[in-house]
Amino acid sequence: MRNIQVCPIPSLIKLYSQKDKIIVIVDIFRATSIICTMFMNGASKVIPVESLEIAKKYKDKGFLVAAERNGKKIDFADFGNSPFEFTLEKIQDKTIVYSTTNGTQTINLCNNNEVVLIGSFLNISALANYLINLKKDVIILCSGWEGDFCLEDMIFAGALSEKLIKSQQFGLYNDAALISMDNWSFAKPNIENYLKKSFQYKRLEKLGMVEIIRYCLTLDKTDLVPVYIDNCLILK
Amino acid sequence: MRNIQVCPIPSLIKLYSQKDKIIVIVDIFRATSIICTMFMNGASKVIPVESLEIAKKYKDKGFLVAAERNGKKIDFADFGNSPFEFTLEKIQDKTIVYSTTNGTQTINLCNNNEVVLIGSFLNISALANYLINLKKDVIILCSGWEGDFCLEDMIFAGALSEKLIKSQQFGLYNDAALISMDNWSFAKPNIENYLKKSFQYKRLEKLGMVEIIRYCLTLDKTDLVPVYIDNCLILK
Repeated sequence: MRNIQVCPIPSLIKLYSQKDKIIVIVDIFRATSIICTMFMNGASKVIPVESLEIAKKYKDKGFLVAAERNGKKIDFADFGNSPFEFTLEKIQDKTIVYSTTNGTQTINLCNNNEVVLIGSFLNISALANYLINLKKDVIILCSGWEGDFCLEDMIFAGALSEKLIKSQQFGLYNDAALISMDNWSFAKPNIENYLKKSFQYKRLEKLGMVEIIRYCLTLDKTDLVPVYIDNCLILK
Repeated sequence: MRNIQVCPIPSLIKLYSQKDKIIVIVDIFRATSIICTMFMNGASKVIPVESLEIAKKYKDKGFLVAAERNGKKIDFADFGNSPFEFTLEKIQDKTIVYSTTNGTQTINLCNNNEVVLIGSFLNISALANYLINLKKDVIILCSGWEGDFCLEDMIFAGALSEKLIKSQQFGLYNDAALISMDNWSFAKPNIENYLKKSFQYKRLEKLGMVEIIRYCLTLDKTDLVPVYIDNCLILK
């Protein structure tokens, strides 16, 4: 039986042995949902960078840059953090440099892993199939929000775990995985409705971003599974 | 409306403003359950200490010492970490120095707070009433296990939150509080049965400690609420 572990916040990843495991990075609102969107609309490569300084250097070299902090587009960037900005017309066959408050920081915690994948509701079924075929244990690494826990990443972890368990090849290995499955069973009938009580939903709703929330909670808009290799996200 | 926040692991407490809040420390398996037991059986004071070196110094001065690491009693200690050791005959009117793997470390994170209380299923109703009367916001601080998340502390946080919300004076403020309430609603019909899948249950079961688990999950054995003041636990 293969193991599923859920790491509920990035700072805990040091407690998990990553050897021979697949890491799935999750930041539902919004980095990993947007990365899936970028590839869906034809991006050839995404370079996640932690600091705005590095993002600016790429911009100066002529790269397309998407960068936000606390939900706001950075001045020098070509894109902010709405999935609707990344249209086929603007990004097809392009490399995009991407820097966000939480999600891209989490990706860069996993530099030394063999297999790091990007997960969101937008690619959840394709991702589950990909994981089932890889024959390894899985760590679902939630990005959280400003170092703390968030509900939307946890329910995604539960939703993905449910799909993996259905293959009869996986079991839940840690308490955070057990917790995420419980939460998902509440959320499953109506994810958006369930999340209305959450911190991020309320925050994004106040900012007039309910359409973005709804988009990020859409299941299976794409079959693509971005992979993190040599500090870049690509399709294999 | 007063706020309930759940801090799911000790290392996150730095993200929470503790000012003017009551902190409830939770370590169901087993520090806070045992502290409640000590007072129930007549202890006059408990001194939680982090290191075994300090515990040993107290022992040399003639204090009664309870000390364990990874579930095992330390050689020089008078008591290990079974609640059944702390009988009225042995501890009535005594001061006990107490050092454990997780729980006592968590208590000592809260040195500078005005009000720090000890919570367990054993005193949950009395604790809820105490909190309702204090007219302040509440942080429920879970000890977890070796720095990571644990299910039993989370469901306790949900159970306590439920009681507070029933007073119509409290609302859930953060995502971890929302999560704990969901988990509690699954656990409530049969707490022990629900926890059988958890990491600690399996671990303690292997060590032959099911009776201890069952004891720590008993509701309302005592009306006492230990308070942490000047580095000691006492009854006010």
